[in-house]
Amino acid sequence: MKIAIAQLNPTIGDITHNAQQIITVTQEAARQNVRLLLTPELSLCGYPPRDLLLYPRFIDSMQEQLEEIASYIPKDIAILVGTVTKNSHAHSQGQKPLYNSIALLETGEVKHIFHKRLLPTYDVFDEDRYFQPGNKSNSFNLSPNRRGERELKIGVTICEDLWNDETFWGKRNYEINPIADLAESGIDIIVNLSASPYSVGKHQLREKMLSHAATRYNIPILYANQVGANDDLIFDGNSVVYDSKGKIVAHAKSFDSDLVIIEFDQLISTSSEEVRLNPICDHNEEIFSALVLGVKDYARKCGFTKALVGLSGGIDSSLVAAIASEALGCDNVLGVLMPSPYSSDHSITDAVALVNNLGINSHKLPISTAMEAYDTMLEPLFAGTEFGVAEENIQSRIRGNILMAIANKFGYLLLSTGNKSEMAVGYGTLYGDMNGGLAVIADVPKTKVFDLCRWLNREQEIIPVNVINKPPSAELKPGQKDQDSLPPYEILDDILERIVCQHQSEVEVVASGFEAEVVKKVMKLLARAEFKRRQAPPGLKITDRAFGTGWRMPIASKWLT
Amino acid sequence: MKIAIAQLNPTIGDITHNAQQIITVTQEAARQNVRLLLTPELSLCGYPPRDLLLYPRFIDSMQEQLEEIASYIPKDIAILVGTVTKNSHAHSQGQKPLYNSIALLETGEVKHIFHKRLLPTYDVFDEDRYFQPGNKSNSFNLSPNRRGERELKIGVTICEDLWNDETFWGKRNYEINPIADLAESGIDIIVNLSASPYSVGKHQLREKMLSHAATRYNIPILYANQVGANDDLIFDGNSVVYDSKGKIVAHAKSFDSDLVIIEFDQLISTSSEEVRLNPICDHNEEIFSALVLGVKDYARKCGFTKALVGLSGGIDSSLVAAIASEALGCDNVLGVLMPSPYSSDHSITDAVALVNNLGINSHKLPISTAMEAYDTMLEPLFAGTEFGVAEENIQSRIRGNILMAIANKFGYLLLSTGNKSEMAVGYGTLYGDMNGGLAVIADVPKTKVFDLCRWLNREQEIIPVNVINKPPSAELKPGQKDQDSLPPYEILDDILERIVCQHQSEVEVVASGFEAEVVKKVMKLLARAEFKRRQAPPGLKITDRAFGTGWRMPIASKWLT
Repeated sequence: MKIAIAQLNPTIGDITHNAQQIITVTQEAARQNVRLLLTPELSLCGYPPRDLLLYPRFIDSMQEQLEEIASYIPKDIAILVGTVTKNSHAHSQGQKPLYNSIALLETGEVKHIFHKRLLPTYDVFDEDRYFQPGNKSNSFNLSPNRRGERELKIGVTICEDLWNDETFWGKRNYEINPIADLAESGIDIIVNLSASPYSVGKHQLREKMLSHAATRYNIPILYANQVGANDDLIFDGNSVVYDSKGKIVAHAKSFDSDLVIIEFDQLISTSSEEVRLNPICDHNEEIFSALVLGVKDYARKCGFTKALVGLSGGIDSSLVAAIASEALGCDNVLGVLMPSPYSSDHSITDAVALVNNLGINSHKLPISTAMEAYDTMLEPLFAGTEFGVAEENIQSRIRGNILMAIANKFGYLLLSTGNKSEMAVGYGTLYGDMNGGLAVIADVPKTKVFDLCRWLNREQEIIPVNVINKPPSAELKPGQKDQDSLPPYEILDDILERIVCQHQSEVEVVASGFEAEVVKKVMKLLARAEFKRRQAPPGLKITDRAFGTGWRMPIASKWLT
Repeated sequence: MKIAIAQLNPTIGDITHNAQQIITVTQEAARQNVRLLLTPELSLCGYPPRDLLLYPRFIDSMQEQLEEIASYIPKDIAILVGTVTKNSHAHSQGQKPLYNSIALLETGEVKHIFHKRLLPTYDVFDEDRYFQPGNKSNSFNLSPNRRGERELKIGVTICEDLWNDETFWGKRNYEINPIADLAESGIDIIVNLSASPYSVGKHQLREKMLSHAATRYNIPILYANQVGANDDLIFDGNSVVYDSKGKIVAHAKSFDSDLVIIEFDQLISTSSEEVRLNPICDHNEEIFSALVLGVKDYARKCGFTKALVGLSGGIDSSLVAAIASEALGCDNVLGVLMPSPYSSDHSITDAVALVNNLGINSHKLPISTAMEAYDTMLEPLFAGTEFGVAEENIQSRIRGNILMAIANKFGYLLLSTGNKSEMAVGYGTLYGDMNGGLAVIADVPKTKVFDLCRWLNREQEIIPVNVINKPPSAELKPGQKDQDSLPPYEILDDILERIVCQHQSEVEVVASGFEAEVVKKVMKLLARAEFKRRQAPPGLKITDRAFGTGWRMPIASKWLT
């Protein structure tokens, strides 16, 4: 019996289009005699739909499209579609009004509805906000479409339902364990429909966990993940199939749509060879691919074909331009050079070299005319004060204004170029270089920015070598260097990793060997920059703890001491 | 027996300072022979602490300060302090790691810990993200401190615990009802420690609900609410005491700290007169007071004493200047007039009249010099194109840059002036007039802006009459009026109320009598402006559905149709 995974890339809220996509892939699978097709979690509305779920019409529309899909699919194929359903007991029982569900569609009908049991509510996840957890173990019997085959009992789980194996995690994450319940009920296969956001190394962790579960319960697992990017979240795909020994039988593409078809027999064979298709193993390649998909999908889903990047000759904007070029094609990327009197010669020569390496378009617009205008306008107020942060920011905001003017005039998506280290300590100008529709590397620490650029240059020079080798500078005053006001990036990134990602306190970070004064300064900068981060564009998430929808910090507050 | 409510204004995360505040008010209450003192929900860390809760040191620090408070309080008084405690069964049981708790401190010790049972997870609330619900009914016995009095059994609830009376709401909001459990166990009083964010008319609703509960169960209720503002959330105070017949016995101030002391005997008397202290009943007065507190606390808690507002001579910036002037004192507010060649004469004369009415400081900085500079700089790219949105936005961003330069140079808090109608449809320039640390009227619909200004002028002219009477205009091109590109504000606000607050679909709004084309346009503008709202400063919330921390919408998505 053939079972398949459709690794789809839905657009959030575009129910009609997503439904069409499901119909198309189902027809393709049916042509290949697939008996059961899996699609990702909430494949009908895309994940995460967030507060669109508060609109009753949105929910009704899914119900209608579900029936539409059921009526279109060929008769010998059954499909599992991720959708949202209503909880009719919500008012009388004091429960949440919706379920995160899977619909089994077959022979023109919605045959079964299964509800997600474990609802992630941490980091970027808000499922308790909308959904009531299902309270039943989910399975169904699938009749064979070929002679001589037996009926299969399929255990159905949705994403988080598989993330609670205490023998894997060393602790329980939820009070119940759906996979254990299913295993007890004697099923032949577990399917898992997921929308598991990307972070570095997560798909390897996921695969270990899935392999562990398959092995522990001696049951094959088919894992169907969403692919594509939505705002700050990137979904890496990497759908995967395990036999009952925990060996990988099939693997879908990383960062791209895919259709993977397997034979059930492969899953119970004890001799299956481990197959890996298109696995991306190198972290730099993985991150680069993720960011490319992030830019590509944000642009496409927002209706942009062209992107704009301010090029300073520095490493951050160079990397962003390289990502944009890969995502949208070099012809669709415009680099704008905006030198000031404080800009070094190499800021221009390095940016020009980058433009040539990438083959993107560019313009040079010096900003001294505007700087002089602001000097003149502000003279009555600023006379007698010293050059300082205000004047530095003016330059950055002039550039921000120019970039937005070009974006507004010609319909470009402006990409902002701040890295995670800068976002953390507020080393960037709000309404200036922080401007943009998408913050491409906002979750990439500066040290990792260097790694990525070196990796990009592995075969030929993409990022000019001088860009990588020169000391980082904002060039907002003569002779300025990042390290004049910040600790060296190796130290800064290490401290930030401890505070931001590991939730260590100042005392704990100092105890692990950092200078107290440096840690105190970083902590203070981090807390003070919260108002900037609140107004930053969505930043593509590549770590377990990003400054995005999963970072929920008060501003008018006192932080840890 | 005397019982008191300390209506406190904590700073989020400033545990030491909040603890000191609790000690001080406890000493004051003890001097007045109070036997039991109530403080608001999470009074030790302030509500909402958000992701500060992920830091173990933050939780430990609360435990330490709790013991510190216990050691300081006089011996005859017991106090209830809102705090966070650890769930020691989290890992073994698969539960959330923390509880939202109340500690009973008495005779130098932490005597009892009670856990919140109903955890709000909707709108601005994320309690399921952090907390495990308590599974026990909470009460304790309070011995008398005077002869001849009897021991009282006190039922303890935390905020949401009281928000699940199906006879009041007409439906159940949660599966359990803590107040019913308490009533069954035979208690003398219910206390409720709350942090209930302000919205227009909410305290009246709250009072109806509390009165209903007191009457239904024939039990007095003491409701202790937080006061003060934190980022987008304003807490109105309005703590209140009901006797067992549901009558108000005492009422704390609106929008200010307070200490309210009552005698237990008053609560069981059947003849108590309804007392109302400082009630604010007029919606305009209520909203104005809320916004004043919002600005005052944001400034104070972020370390600002002075605020800056760009004055266009329009009604939005006029209202914001009036609010700022009331919040920080007229001497601490600077209005900046930045006329362009497109500005009307009245944009200056009206702004000057406002400055005089308020007695605030002002500067005039014409922006034509900068406009010419951008024209010159962009000429190579823009030659041959028509004047359009790009050029309009340049002006707004020049103003935004000037305001930020002044804010950066002299340490002002920049207040942004966009109203809710503008925020909804994107009628504002990102990185221009949307700039600021706080968006003061971002949740006030334009029609309500007019109401507030007329109310402000009830005794004397504060907002110049011409500002109220002239047609709204952004003045970014000659002769521009808001109504050239938007429907009349009465219609726009009505449509927006339906879509944004009532979650109606386009079809439903049209069905209620609006022109299909207008509704379609508003819907499109609303969806398209999501990227702007994501980058807006925190906006003070005054409605049930604001574009703030409780508005969680995807950007790269297709909205409802």
